[in-house]
Amino acid sequence: MALSGIRVVDLTRILAGPFCTLMLADMGAEVIKIESPDSGDPVRRQGAIKEGISWYFAQFNRNKKSVVLDLYTDEGKKTLTKLLSTADVLVDNYRPGVLTKMGFSEERLEEINPRLIQASVNGYGSSGPYVDRPSFDFIAQAMSGFMSVNGGPDSDPQRAAPPMSDLIAGLYCAFGVVTALQARERTGRGQRVESSLTGGLISMMAYLSAEYFATGEIPQRTGNYHPIVSPYGLFQASDGMVAVAPSTDTFVRRFLRALMLEYLLDDVRFQTNDDRMINRDVLADRINEVTSLRTVDYWIEVINDAGCPCGRVMDLAEVFSDPQVLSQNMVLDQVHPGHGTVRMTGFPVKLSRTPAKLRRPAPDLGADTEAILAALDDSD
Amino acid sequence: MALSGIRVVDLTRILAGPFCTLMLADMGAEVIKIESPDSGDPVRRQGAIKEGISWYFAQFNRNKKSVVLDLYTDEGKKTLTKLLSTADVLVDNYRPGVLTKMGFSEERLEEINPRLIQASVNGYGSSGPYVDRPSFDFIAQAMSGFMSVNGGPDSDPQRAAPPMSDLIAGLYCAFGVVTALQARERTGRGQRVESSLTGGLISMMAYLSAEYFATGEIPQRTGNYHPIVSPYGLFQASDGMVAVAPSTDTFVRRFLRALMLEYLLDDVRFQTNDDRMINRDVLADRINEVTSLRTVDYWIEVINDAGCPCGRVMDLAEVFSDPQVLSQNMVLDQVHPGHGTVRMTGFPVKLSRTPAKLRRPAPDLGADTEAILAALDDSD
Repeated sequence: MALSGIRVVDLTRILAGPFCTLMLADMGAEVIKIESPDSGDPVRRQGAIKEGISWYFAQFNRNKKSVVLDLYTDEGKKTLTKLLSTADVLVDNYRPGVLTKMGFSEERLEEINPRLIQASVNGYGSSGPYVDRPSFDFIAQAMSGFMSVNGGPDSDPQRAAPPMSDLIAGLYCAFGVVTALQARERTGRGQRVESSLTGGLISMMAYLSAEYFATGEIPQRTGNYHPIVSPYGLFQASDGMVAVAPSTDTFVRRFLRALMLEYLLDDVRFQTNDDRMINRDVLADRINEVTSLRTVDYWIEVINDAGCPCGRVMDLAEVFSDPQVLSQNMVLDQVHPGHGTVRMTGFPVKLSRTPAKLRRPAPDLGADTEAILAALDDSD
Repeated sequence: MALSGIRVVDLTRILAGPFCTLMLADMGAEVIKIESPDSGDPVRRQGAIKEGISWYFAQFNRNKKSVVLDLYTDEGKKTLTKLLSTADVLVDNYRPGVLTKMGFSEERLEEINPRLIQASVNGYGSSGPYVDRPSFDFIAQAMSGFMSVNGGPDSDPQRAAPPMSDLIAGLYCAFGVVTALQARERTGRGQRVESSLTGGLISMMAYLSAEYFATGEIPQRTGNYHPIVSPYGLFQASDGMVAVAPSTDTFVRRFLRALMLEYLLDDVRFQTNDDRMINRDVLADRINEVTSLRTVDYWIEVINDAGCPCGRVMDLAEVFSDPQVLSQNMVLDQVHPGHGTVRMTGFPVKLSRTPAKLRRPAPDLGADTEAILAALDDSD
């Protein structure tokens, strides 16, 4: 596998950090999840629990090992030190400074292992006025500008239900870790890698931030309307809604042709995108008159065949029974001994020669303590 | 820099692919953006244009070079072939099959350069029933389940304003490329790397997908309410809203203590999270009565000091003047000769020894054609 031979010591819990180490584990790294003796990662007790295992925990901790260490004791710290001397990567998602207080400052870690990549996912960055604040996905969604543009024009600023800032920060950190591994091939040295919940989501503001920088105008919530493209959005079919996104004049023509409304482009109100923006509601009404005559299935086929991007608004039941989603192996089943078979989402990154694999189920708390510590002792 | 010496031939346009190659360029890779002779990447003409440059284009194409090639001609194809023989990575975001039709099948690319990493960002994956459909961010938001859970309980399914599926697919692809580079260190061989708009966003459904798999219940839109935690959400201050996210009993106690409402935890209605979910509205009212007496600034300080995550809902003007955001260098200015100074967002991944850098402005169309092609000829 792509990351075979890479050992990751994983001091993370909940979500952002575990998502980072999940990316590494799925690609073949040996991820050793260090958990506290009492009860380990709190996610073990969150979400739906079936046959003694949280499916939420299982999804985010597949392909990992679990070692219980009490990092408040000298013995625990000594074992961690030994483990780090055998590792390539350390990932933590403590608040900045916590690891230093535990006796593992950047300098100390470099002493223990100069090749170690020290990765950290945090709320706001490891310096600056908010460095000591606790953070959380919802707060990062609020403070990144994301909520200010998410939702309709008449709604409050809305969070996204998925924990986007956690996941994006975790993914950025995984990218940073592999990039640092690549740098190490030349330099022989590790380094610090960081991403933050807030910084990660800010970097996703994309053209909204570019527009703000260029014009000074603050982007507003526009719901499913595109702020500068028309027609665009959800249209009414006889049995549901169809999402249509014609991004250029060519696509608009294909879309309207599929509806047998191409003649509208000869109407002075609809000739250019500017015209269509001014008369957006009138145009949407004309489109809805036609789309409402047939089913979602009908329009998906006809509009796609015309070469214009369109699709169904799918709930998760539809997503996970969709033939395309299944063809991409985005639903996986893994036997978890003692806990039955757990269903989870598949791998979003496909490599042809060294593909991601389900190698092992999410570990029971401390399942690998004995084996890992025995091997450490042997190597003394 | 971390990816110094890595040459990327970039056949992408618009957003998902260019975001992937931006990640690589920011980390030091030489990214050669191939553009069509007429007008190049359409984003050059999108968004606010100042002094002849689109700030949207500038943000996504910094640190890259531009080479104009007409890939419909034999000469263009010949030059691309030569260029690929010198490259480490090829990234495209064509629809699956287009590159093969152009004469660059997977097998042919391997013949040209067996060490080449062939990366592709597409809409649905490179196989399966929807393989020939055109795609687009909005459609992937609809078809991944994301829209089904984004928005309030009374709203339509909502897209997120930022093009999340494009950006996430691009970031996954960048992670895949660097992972494949790491694999190549051992195998000496390139391979295919893929991510898709739909698959990427599906993998972000996180605990929502885990809950669906475990229970069969379809997650609904809950707006700013957390489906299983109370209190949580936006609360009313005298001059705005405060986002508060106490995820455990400990945080709830800290939060209520900061409001001098800790005594509510003795009330039978509010003792456990289950109690507080049943009486969520009553509890929110009690909290709002108190929070509405003081300003957002006051509560941000007091609630954070109490150790409970909270923050302001910030628009992009507030985000980009926030002292923390500025302390993390998330706003950068780059002189673009002939086009003035362009402001853009900073780097979301921080590496201590080989940090991301602004090395060069976004290129004018074909700015590097002569230099790159001359060097190719020299190496003949």
